[in-house]
Amino acid sequence: MASNKTNTGNYFEDFKIGQILNHATPRTITEGDVSLYTALYGGRFALQSADSFAIDCGLQAAPVDDLLVFHIVFGKTVPDVSLNAVANLGYADVRFVAPVYPGDTVQTSSEVIGLKQNSNGKTGVVYVRSTGVNQMGEVVLDYVRWVMVRKNNLDAPAPETVIPELPAVVDPVNFVMPPDLQIQQFDTTLSGSPHMYEDYEIGEKIDHIDGMTIEESEHMLATRLYQNTAKVHFNQYMMKDDRMGRRLIYGGHIISLARGLSFNGLGNSLFVAAINGGSHTAPTFAGNTVFAWSEVLDKSDIPGREDIGALRIRTLATKDTPCTDFPDKSEDGSRNPNVVLDLDYWLILPKATVAL
Amino acid sequence: MASNKTNTGNYFEDFKIGQILNHATPRTITEGDVSLYTALYGGRFALQSADSFAIDCGLQAAPVDDLLVFHIVFGKTVPDVSLNAVANLGYADVRFVAPVYPGDTVQTSSEVIGLKQNSNGKTGVVYVRSTGVNQMGEVVLDYVRWVMVRKNNLDAPAPETVIPELPAVVDPVNFVMPPDLQIQQFDTTLSGSPHMYEDYEIGEKIDHIDGMTIEESEHMLATRLYQNTAKVHFNQYMMKDDRMGRRLIYGGHIISLARGLSFNGLGNSLFVAAINGGSHTAPTFAGNTVFAWSEVLDKSDIPGREDIGALRIRTLATKDTPCTDFPDKSEDGSRNPNVVLDLDYWLILPKATVAL
Amino acid sequence: MASNKTNTGNYFEDFKIGQILNHATPRTITEGDVSLYTALYGGRFALQSADSFAIDCGLQAAPVDDLLVFHIVFGKTVPDVSLNAVANLGYADVRFVAPVYPGDTVQTSSEVIGLKQNSNGKTGVVYVRSTGVNQMGEVVLDYVRWVMVRKNNLDAPAPETVIPELPAVVDPVNFVMPPDLQIQQFDTTLSGSPHMYEDYEIGEKIDHIDGMTIEESEHMLATRLYQNTAKVHFNQYMMKDDRMGRRLIYGGHIISLARGLSFNGLGNSLFVAAINGGSHTAPTFAGNTVFAWSEVLDKSDIPGREDIGALRIRTLATKDTPCTDFPDKSEDGSRNPNVVLDLDYWLILPKATVAL
Repeated sequence: MASNKTNTGNYFEDFKIGQILNHATPRTITEGDVSLYTALYGGRFALQSADSFAIDCGLQAAPVDDLLVFHIVFGKTVPDVSLNAVANLGYADVRFVAPVYPGDTVQTSSEVIGLKQNSNGKTGVVYVRSTGVNQMGEVVLDYVRWVMVRKNNLDAPAPETVIPELPAVVDPVNFVMPPDLQIQQFDTTLSGSPHMYEDYEIGEKIDHIDGMTIEESEHMLATRLYQNTAKVHFNQYMMKDDRMGRRLIYGGHIISLARGLSFNGLGNSLFVAAINGGSHTAPTFAGNTVFAWSEVLDKSDIPGREDIGALRIRTLATKDTPCTDFPDKSEDGSRNPNVVLDLDYWLILPKATVAL
Repeated sequence: MASNKTNTGNYFEDFKIGQILNHATPRTITEGDVSLYTALYGGRFALQSADSFAIDCGLQAAPVDDLLVFHIVFGKTVPDVSLNAVANLGYADVRFVAPVYPGDTVQTSSEVIGLKQNSNGKTGVVYVRSTGVNQMGEVVLDYVRWVMVRKNNLDAPAPETVIPELPAVVDPVNFVMPPDLQIQQFDTTLSGSPHMYEDYEIGEKIDHIDGMTIEESEHMLATRLYQNTAKVHFNQYMMKDDRMGRRLIYGGHIISLARGLSFNGLGNSLFVAAINGGSHTAPTFAGNTVFAWSEVLDKSDIPGREDIGALRIRTLATKDTPCTDFPDKSEDGSRNPNVVLDLDYWLILPKATVAL
Repeated sequence: MASNKTNTGNYFEDFKIGQILNHATPRTITEGDVSLYTALYGGRFALQSADSFAIDCGLQAAPVDDLLVFHIVFGKTVPDVSLNAVANLGYADVRFVAPVYPGDTVQTSSEVIGLKQNSNGKTGVVYVRSTGVNQMGEVVLDYVRWVMVRKNNLDAPAPETVIPELPAVVDPVNFVMPPDLQIQQFDTTLSGSPHMYEDYEIGEKIDHIDGMTIEESEHMLATRLYQNTAKVHFNQYMMKDDRMGRRLIYGGHIISLARGLSFNGLGNSLFVAAINGGSHTAPTFAGNTVFAWSEVLDKSDIPGREDIGALRIRTLATKDTPCTDFPDKSEDGSRNPNVVLDLDYWLILPKATVAL
């Protein structure tokens, strides 16, 4: 007697505008997760590394890296949103709203905010706004992503097309900074970089120099740590018959590697305030060495804060390609096949005029 | 001047009925161990993932996964019991008696309860009952295992044969449930499964669908985390001359992988109450992809508890073989060479009649 | 517009005698780091494994393994001292001065205490004394290392040669033992070894028997955990063109593996009190199996302590070479190419006359 108690995920016809998906598996984020994150990416940002440094910045303790929070909040949506996805198409309006500290518990819910059946009648695009909250019910992270999902019942009628309006860029007026953050005692010797907000110029390009080679066990340890269940990352038996014959690496793993590498050049970035958008432009596999470079797209004051500013950064990660020459799209707009990530986001940096 | 201060382990003739072995290396289990366990197996059981969920279930915090406790308690017995083992033959009467929380310290002792020299005169079977206790001296885990151990002195006389009587199945009357456990607020949205105790039927078979590929570094990280020193898992220089030429994967690693995969179909299992028996029916190696399926063998009320029940589950894990067709022994009883684990155990699930 | 905000490290001509380098990235060491360290090396020393055992020894909790502290304190010096190093030449006068507990935050500073330009005019040797302090400003670790560093400007004048006087052996009179350490309740059953200070003889050689095979992801997880940024460990794209074509394994990883293996024979070593010197005599690569053996070079009382003594130990680690025959230099002094580590250090052991 075969059971049907296993989760087979939602198909395109299962999603309705306004539908709320309360995702499973709340998760207490601990110092253990933080150590693993350090071991996986080698991050050296002082605020996230040392309680003493964080306390000098007015915080209660070293906050959990923003991207670790992102990956855990994101992972919970996979069984309900993207188990039958053909492709992760993008995300937008990602806002980090409150710091998470070790001991906090996060859970995630999503609202379906857009639907568009594809003309082939076999798939459709689902837009969800996902919200991560902590154990006090406070929002810590809020973002939109959209995925192409298969239909199971091809005869199911197409829903009315709704495409949400999404900001191309998160407006810094919408940033929520930790109210207790203060940077009067910010120590650039301990932070490892003398470069403050004022030192960056729009158009500036930074080669982060270093390269990091990926191993199978590392990306799997990471992706399981995030309780992300997407099969393509774990099941070589299945993937051997895939076009590439290899396990795919979770895109978030590449984002975190690029963020780790970006310390060399962006060492004083305190927080990721927002992600405006991002594309995983090519797959990565174990054995690839990841490099990264960044461009300063914009700079902004933050309403109500004299002491910190925001840099809008575009970071590109490559595989097996050093970034001395800032590899990018060709002049005709065609992609460089070695560029694997193109991420547009806002970083918070201390201002030199206020810090020590 | 060569030293003889290294531990060479006990041989068959060193064991005596009634002998107590107090094993070395007490171990404080921490949030760091829990995070590593999540990164190794990707478990999504809500009770073990979130303090908030566990508190809603009446517990003080998220308890440590039962199998992590098992592996750590078990690991301590290796230097004294099985360093000269030819084979791990089985275990029985495994009872998880009290939850372990991060910060608790466990240590293990064993009593020799059975001995039988083999007719070849070169080996014998040793039965031990091992007991894990916490820092308050409370038993947390109690189990019997038996191993075939080499003799060092072939002239040592055979001991009187003693074979302990062992239960084929742990009787639920002997389960010890956490007295503070309450499931009135059990939230099946957060737990990720709507299926409660009443929903399972004897004879039901569940394909857990997903597959997980094993890497060398993962099983070694796991086995070292458990401070299990069995050489076959770590020493490729030695194993290259073994029949298979490869490092063997610790059987407990497969049990934990199967338990992780079983979330998809058994998501509301709160605890492993007992293991009735189990066999590692074939070796696994790095590169294998592990799948699993389960059968409901029996159901039982638990004396004194209206709110929870026990499912007796048989879980089989395979290598490189999806479990859609529930691979098992042949009709003539011969083993399927791709089945690597056959485990018989009791899981505790909430009853729908009591939960929200 | 290319940025020059990345750290390119110091060159030989950048160092001045008496110069103080305050290194970046203070680090809170947590239970998560301790768990990872256990998973990486499988250490079984009871004092570092169990709070209960440590409390019975008078300490507040299980202290962080000395070598984990060493690697983290050391890692911070890499961006300022050895990013342009040709070779790590040695260390001396390494003293572990105060225990570190989970929750403590360490940071590192270094003083330039020696300089000698090489006759080729292209490189020079830099000696630094590095000091790790905790969040109370207490020194936890103090050591000298010297590295050969490239010149960037070959026309820069050679500095006056200063070669510091360094002790060949740290004098036990300079050991700082934890004042609260007491070993009257030291339990050799729980510690896993009956062999106390008095049981070791000068000249005694111990084969630690076991072997541990290294995987790429393990040494990279370790080295990132230590926030050590030396490129040769991480970047296969770069290293494929190196003479060996492989990523090099951080020497400290080998030290920790050897220390882990040395439990079998030196199980009652409570602390590493000091490292007198050490050489990484050959490179190691993923796939190598590490073995180790030790020789007792000397024994010493410790001023003011009746209950503990110090063993001066020389531990050699090999690759793919069991240590049954204690592989060492040839009689003519030439190195054995399979010996990868030669470490001279002091271990603290309880005295049998005081312990239970």
